[in-house]
Amino acid sequence: MKLSKQNLQPATEKIYDTIVVGGGAGGLSAGIYLQRYLLNTLIIDKGKARSFWMTELHNYLGLPPDTPGRSVLRQGKEHFLSLGGDLLDAYVDEIFDEGEIFAVRVKVGRQNSKYHTFRAKYIIAASGIIDYLPELDNMRNVYDYAGYNLHVCLICDGYEMKDKKVGVFASSAGNAEVVFPLGWFTKDITLFTQELFEVTDDLRSRLKAQGYQIEETPIEQFIGENHEMSGVELKDSRVIELETGLISMGSKYHATYLDKFDLEKQGGNLVTDKMARTSHPRIFAIGDLKVGLNQVVVAAADGALAATQIWRDIRRSTPPKTAFS
Amino acid sequence: MKLSKQNLQPATEKIYDTIVVGGGAGGLSAGIYLQRYLLNTLIIDKGKARSFWMTELHNYLGLPPDTPGRSVLRQGKEHFLSLGGDLLDAYVDEIFDEGEIFAVRVKVGRQNSKYHTFRAKYIIAASGIIDYLPELDNMRNVYDYAGYNLHVCLICDGYEMKDKKVGVFASSAGNAEVVFPLGWFTKDITLFTQELFEVTDDLRSRLKAQGYQIEETPIEQFIGENHEMSGVELKDSRVIELETGLISMGSKYHATYLDKFDLEKQGGNLVTDKMARTSHPRIFAIGDLKVGLNQVVVAAADGALAATQIWRDIRRSTPPKTAFS
Repeated sequence: MKLSKQNLQPATEKIYDTIVVGGGAGGLSAGIYLQRYLLNTLIIDKGKARSFWMTELHNYLGLPPDTPGRSVLRQGKEHFLSLGGDLLDAYVDEIFDEGEIFAVRVKVGRQNSKYHTFRAKYIIAASGIIDYLPELDNMRNVYDYAGYNLHVCLICDGYEMKDKKVGVFASSAGNAEVVFPLGWFTKDITLFTQELFEVTDDLRSRLKAQGYQIEETPIEQFIGENHEMSGVELKDSRVIELETGLISMGSKYHATYLDKFDLEKQGGNLVTDKMARTSHPRIFAIGDLKVGLNQVVVAAADGALAATQIWRDIRRSTPPKTAFS
Repeated sequence: MKLSKQNLQPATEKIYDTIVVGGGAGGLSAGIYLQRYLLNTLIIDKGKARSFWMTELHNYLGLPPDTPGRSVLRQGKEHFLSLGGDLLDAYVDEIFDEGEIFAVRVKVGRQNSKYHTFRAKYIIAASGIIDYLPELDNMRNVYDYAGYNLHVCLICDGYEMKDKKVGVFASSAGNAEVVFPLGWFTKDITLFTQELFEVTDDLRSRLKAQGYQIEETPIEQFIGENHEMSGVELKDSRVIELETGLISMGSKYHATYLDKFDLEKQGGNLVTDKMARTSHPRIFAIGDLKVGLNQVVVAAADGALAATQIWRDIRRSTPPKTAFS
């Protein structure tokens, strides 16, 4: 059931089999599998999964390619709730390992927020990442286009940029490297650095060799209408026309609640085994938090794997039902 | 486009980036990703993927839990074709590695079949498995119920058997072991051996300890109506009433075309790396063929991984587009 400030008391008194942190594609898929394994599951979701911003999921098998990310999340939540799972809109503040059981301290409510503690045998960390967007005075005009023709994922949306005039918005020399694989899809590329990093001679000469442009002046605003970005206005008032854009400014993990566990990582991502288990035997990590491809269908599969392994663990340590019980 | 006997000539003259063997969930997901990476893809499908038989996909994120497997396949085929992929209804007979290129010999047409050869740089093996069903004189009454309340997958459908009177139809002592994890969902279990294997004292005593029944007499027919199996009639005319069933008779890999490559295996399944690459650098394996969980969402994710790795391989060995080209 949907938990809220009013009805969460009984939930704080029980021990869930699993608490899933994050109600995006990975967390919901895990929740559906867990409930079907007859395991009690609480999903704690702070809202706005990365897929929430996707206006069209172009590559998810079984769904028409114009399906919005949020409709997958809505369907997933309904599905999970229909199986008897618990769902709470809240922020996971900290997790304590009490030996066999985790205590999960949660901040509920945006105003007059209160802390509550929920308990579970297993944790699935499915809290994903949040993309950095260009910091402009009027962020509205970033959000007007982000997820429409201003993309954040080359893997997902390179195809949408095919043979188009693309602006790449990078925050570091490392992030700027995306222009080269983007060159698979289009040759008309302008790299915007906004003076956020120094363009080395090496990068400059490699860009020049491909005929890509560099624009170092900071951006005043994105321009366009009806969610179609048509270019950028720079601080010096010049306007650069574009047909589409790719933001490559990095992302932040939503997982400070895991810091104290000192889990094995690789370049910021959690290392997991084939069943999505981290270096802690009762903490699993799925979706964008873990090493691998940041794709909705991969997160959904990770959820199935983690849930199945947790079921195996719990089942093997529990006597089966018998005809005598 | 859909290829057929009439229009396949041009396709035999080109070199595809990838030929995908199998048009189930994994193969279609791979095809969608490959086409979006601007890679030419041919899917060769002999029809009747395992998911084709699923009357309801209960655990696939984003789809209502009563979605038939075949509607996912239909949507996936449309999606793939809309991206310009080629699809051929045919049987892959043999694959020859000509060094940089594979030659794939295909049998087209059920009557007056002819052999044709298609070429590709990469192969994705996505031809899955086929479940063995109980061999009865009148197989019709197996197919009447298989995929409805006569299940083949504990992971998928254990939940559907919760607290029900279940018949388990096994073909070997190994397959019979499924009764114990099934005991997570229900305690009312009858194991049907059909005299196909000897029940050891050990198995008999473990079954007895849980209160599970054994029935060794062969089955005459399944009984029921409107796709609801309600029991079995045995060869000695006794009728055993059941509410649902689980077939555990093993499965056969659809991959003889790979035999000569001597790929690394583990218990019959192909071993792959994290991106679904087999021990041959240009052959990938996805879905039920490979080691891992046989789930539609896992196969779909495998397709995304294999396609992405093939794109990386091809992109890195190809000069990017430049503004001068």
